[in-house]
Amino acid sequence: MTERTDPDVADVIVVGAGSGGLTVAVGLSRLRKRVLLLEADDVGGDCTNVGCIPSKSLLHHSAVWPASGRSTGAVLEAVRRRRTALRDHEIEEFGSTPGIDLRAGRARLVGPGSVELTESDGTVRMLAAGHVVIATGSRPRRVAIDGAPDELVVTNEELFELDDVPSRLVIVGGGPIGLEMAVAFARLGTRITVLEAADQILPALLPEAAAVVRRSLERQGIEIHTGTVAHRFEPAASSAPAGTSAAVADPAVADSPVPGPTPPDPTPGAALPAPPASGSLHVGSPGGTVTSVIDDVDRILMAVGRVPNSGDLGLEALGVALDTTGRIVVDGKGRTSVPNIWACGDVTDRGGTTHSANAWGRRIIKHIVAPIAPAGAEPEHPAVAYTDPEAATIGEQRVEVPADVRRLRVAFADVDRGYTDEVDDGVIIVDVRRFSGRILGATVVGPRAGELISVFALAMKNDLPFHKWYGTVWPYPTYAAALGQLVDDYMTATVTGVGGEFVGWARGRLRRRR
Amino acid sequence: MTERTDPDVADVIVVGAGSGGLTVAVGLSRLRKRVLLLEADDVGGDCTNVGCIPSKSLLHHSAVWPASGRSTGAVLEAVRRRRTALRDHEIEEFGSTPGIDLRAGRARLVGPGSVELTESDGTVRMLAAGHVVIATGSRPRRVAIDGAPDELVVTNEELFELDDVPSRLVIVGGGPIGLEMAVAFARLGTRITVLEAADQILPALLPEAAAVVRRSLERQGIEIHTGTVAHRFEPAASSAPAGTSAAVADPAVADSPVPGPTPPDPTPGAALPAPPASGSLHVGSPGGTVTSVIDDVDRILMAVGRVPNSGDLGLEALGVALDTTGRIVVDGKGRTSVPNIWACGDVTDRGGTTHSANAWGRRIIKHIVAPIAPAGAEPEHPAVAYTDPEAATIGEQRVEVPADVRRLRVAFADVDRGYTDEVDDGVIIVDVRRFSGRILGATVVGPRAGELISVFALAMKNDLPFHKWYGTVWPYPTYAAALGQLVDDYMTATVTGVGGEFVGWARGRLRRRR
Repeated sequence: MTERTDPDVADVIVVGAGSGGLTVAVGLSRLRKRVLLLEADDVGGDCTNVGCIPSKSLLHHSAVWPASGRSTGAVLEAVRRRRTALRDHEIEEFGSTPGIDLRAGRARLVGPGSVELTESDGTVRMLAAGHVVIATGSRPRRVAIDGAPDELVVTNEELFELDDVPSRLVIVGGGPIGLEMAVAFARLGTRITVLEAADQILPALLPEAAAVVRRSLERQGIEIHTGTVAHRFEPAASSAPAGTSAAVADPAVADSPVPGPTPPDPTPGAALPAPPASGSLHVGSPGGTVTSVIDDVDRILMAVGRVPNSGDLGLEALGVALDTTGRIVVDGKGRTSVPNIWACGDVTDRGGTTHSANAWGRRIIKHIVAPIAPAGAEPEHPAVAYTDPEAATIGEQRVEVPADVRRLRVAFADVDRGYTDEVDDGVIIVDVRRFSGRILGATVVGPRAGELISVFALAMKNDLPFHKWYGTVWPYPTYAAALGQLVDDYMTATVTGVGGEFVGWARGRLRRRR
Repeated sequence: MTERTDPDVADVIVVGAGSGGLTVAVGLSRLRKRVLLLEADDVGGDCTNVGCIPSKSLLHHSAVWPASGRSTGAVLEAVRRRRTALRDHEIEEFGSTPGIDLRAGRARLVGPGSVELTESDGTVRMLAAGHVVIATGSRPRRVAIDGAPDELVVTNEELFELDDVPSRLVIVGGGPIGLEMAVAFARLGTRITVLEAADQILPALLPEAAAVVRRSLERQGIEIHTGTVAHRFEPAASSAPAGTSAAVADPAVADSPVPGPTPPDPTPGAALPAPPASGSLHVGSPGGTVTSVIDDVDRILMAVGRVPNSGDLGLEALGVALDTTGRIVVDGKGRTSVPNIWACGDVTDRGGTTHSANAWGRRIIKHIVAPIAPAGAEPEHPAVAYTDPEAATIGEQRVEVPADVRRLRVAFADVDRGYTDEVDDGVIIVDVRRFSGRILGATVVGPRAGELISVFALAMKNDLPFHKWYGTVWPYPTYAAALGQLVDDYMTATVTGVGGEFVGWARGRLRRRR
């Protein structure tokens, strides 16, 4: 059924009710703008439904398992309940926010300020507004694996629907999503192998920082293969029941193909059907050589990057510029190449985290309301992988630092709290311009890294040079006291003569231990 | 044997090789000053030996118990080993630092720049220097409990020497030391009762913050009696073996005295002898009324404050001013009332934490070397109790805030990471001057509080007003993202008109949930 009526009119149409869209819609509604907020799927977007919330919830529930007394299936169910409660709250909240008209349906831009909304029953409504904000997010990239049945392969969109944990899970992709789930499922007893095509996991991190995470994950029993991709899947001769032993085959015989019978019917599952059968995954170099066969694989998590949801929106017809990967190009105000069409979040070329979507959404609110306001400086956006340990970065991550930059390091093992807490790995790295004290970038891999990187987020936003950190009294023995050790090192190395020598003996009793 | 020879001469004599004294000695030695560093007991002072290091180590080891597979006695032994390894490292390091002459013995000031050192064999040496720095620390205050055998009552000085955990431990004093140990021993299976004479535990905290810690400790099975002190101890009729049940007696019958037989001989223990017998502790109001009897008490931890080690140093004869509690009065440069005699750390009236001793030690170094340098502003010193959850404060802690101060609050339950991590209690409180944005004080009671208060330590040291925090991109979903919610609240409440409304919807999905 298709009907066309006079358009529903608002000040702003926001396409997508995830982290970016909700920020814009709520902010504008508080400024007394009428907002039409359109969502094709679940309110809350990836963050609430298949991202931050269920993944951090699973990390938490797996950390307190088995002491929680739950079965592994009940852990997954608890995560779903928590996620769904938040989603329901958001639907209720944003569905009743004055000034926000929340509509379910799929949107398509048909002209400047003109949007066609197709509702689930096929009804098409015309909507009109002075501005359109695109916040449609992204979806997981899927790479086909020869022979792997569709039901075997999940992404973060299906992972949290599993009725129980896999026995042997291969995670394709060693980025934050893949590694966080590696940690969580390994805690719940799943045997995990991570395949990463690049030569290090977490490729956005400095090699020494990524190496810390790798060592820790391996100590947690997680197998990691870098420079490795999945080539083909072969179902086992007979369906292996969950919980059977599995091993990486001898590479010498790994290339011999295993006959693959027709998989049996899927076992019915509480949430998502169990895969048709376990089998063997042949993995190897991206060039094609199979180096290992992983047997008894009963689930594959695909976590190899994101694809922006920029198609089917009518953007090309309107001339909205995309980059080569399909992401919408925006300027410092959040504007696309077409006047009065704005974009934020994963669908743009400006970063794909909830806090980035929020920060860019705030910019859009400002510039819709105050068009002549300058864009202003864009603060650094930190990034955190919630692995064990957490890995956090902000600013530049240069493998080689130029001569006018001092790279400062402190190992958590040389920090007193690290000593009392038996933290024998992990590091804080800070790059500071030698004479100005300007902080160019920082990396924290270790306990509470997400909190520690936040100190840098505040300081860098305010251009607080590193020498102005000197004199701060850091509470002892926190992990943050390590920051005082770094500042002392900077002052000792930078300030000549007596001034530098004042630095003296830091609170870090262990600092000269190695 | 007493002999007097020509004095050993140095630039500076530092009395006490704990946190403050080591800071001063190392800092001055790097400035090529010759330092005589005197220590009557263990190098490293309270922090290394009976304070921060063993207490945080025990908190860690108890948190990973019983998964660590150790016996409770082995946990205590592991803590001792860790502590002793650090002490040995410090003795080696500071005993071989160029410019530092580390001497064992008890010091007494006999004139300006003149110190008499009595070594353990009775040898007395005269030492002379241009400056003397007193960093003799403090010791636990001991309050007598009628009828309690000496061996039953320990302080932090003996606690870590126990050969196994008590069955039922009464902790007298609800400050940071007592409560941290309550958490650690409760995890190891000890039944704990905390007695606090004041009407709240952690009296330095805002009542609502202290109440968070109390609720959490009670959920951990720790009994807490505020407004309560120990009146008298009565040994049980027969020595109760460890592990027997114990209960607070019916208050109605609590006053009837229990006959106390002669205690049996002490049981030999691996480290510290076991107490002669368990017994009943009669507790009640500070006025004297017994309200409860705690049976089967087999250890009492006395944690009711600290006494400065300012006696027996010859200070009175030299005219060094003390306050009414015996602490050495120092000015903003760390000077006592007598020229060229300085003091830092617990023995002074300027705070008794390792980080405060360090900060004041650094000031003394500066002013010994550069006497005409101004003292400069003294940054705020944070304080952290490493309970579960941690409780951290900085700056003013006013129960009532004046009209020109805005008190901002965010509950961890309304922070998204709190939601995923099932944190249903805890709060961040910030007091901000309404128009200037100046931060007057902050309290964090919840996960990672020690790290979060450090953000305030840096900002307050640099007079960074709260409105300049606005625009910082806090990583989501960290606990630090809660700081962004507080800043949004401040901006919304403070900035009038459109500016304030920009704040919009924070990353905190839950913030309007309640």
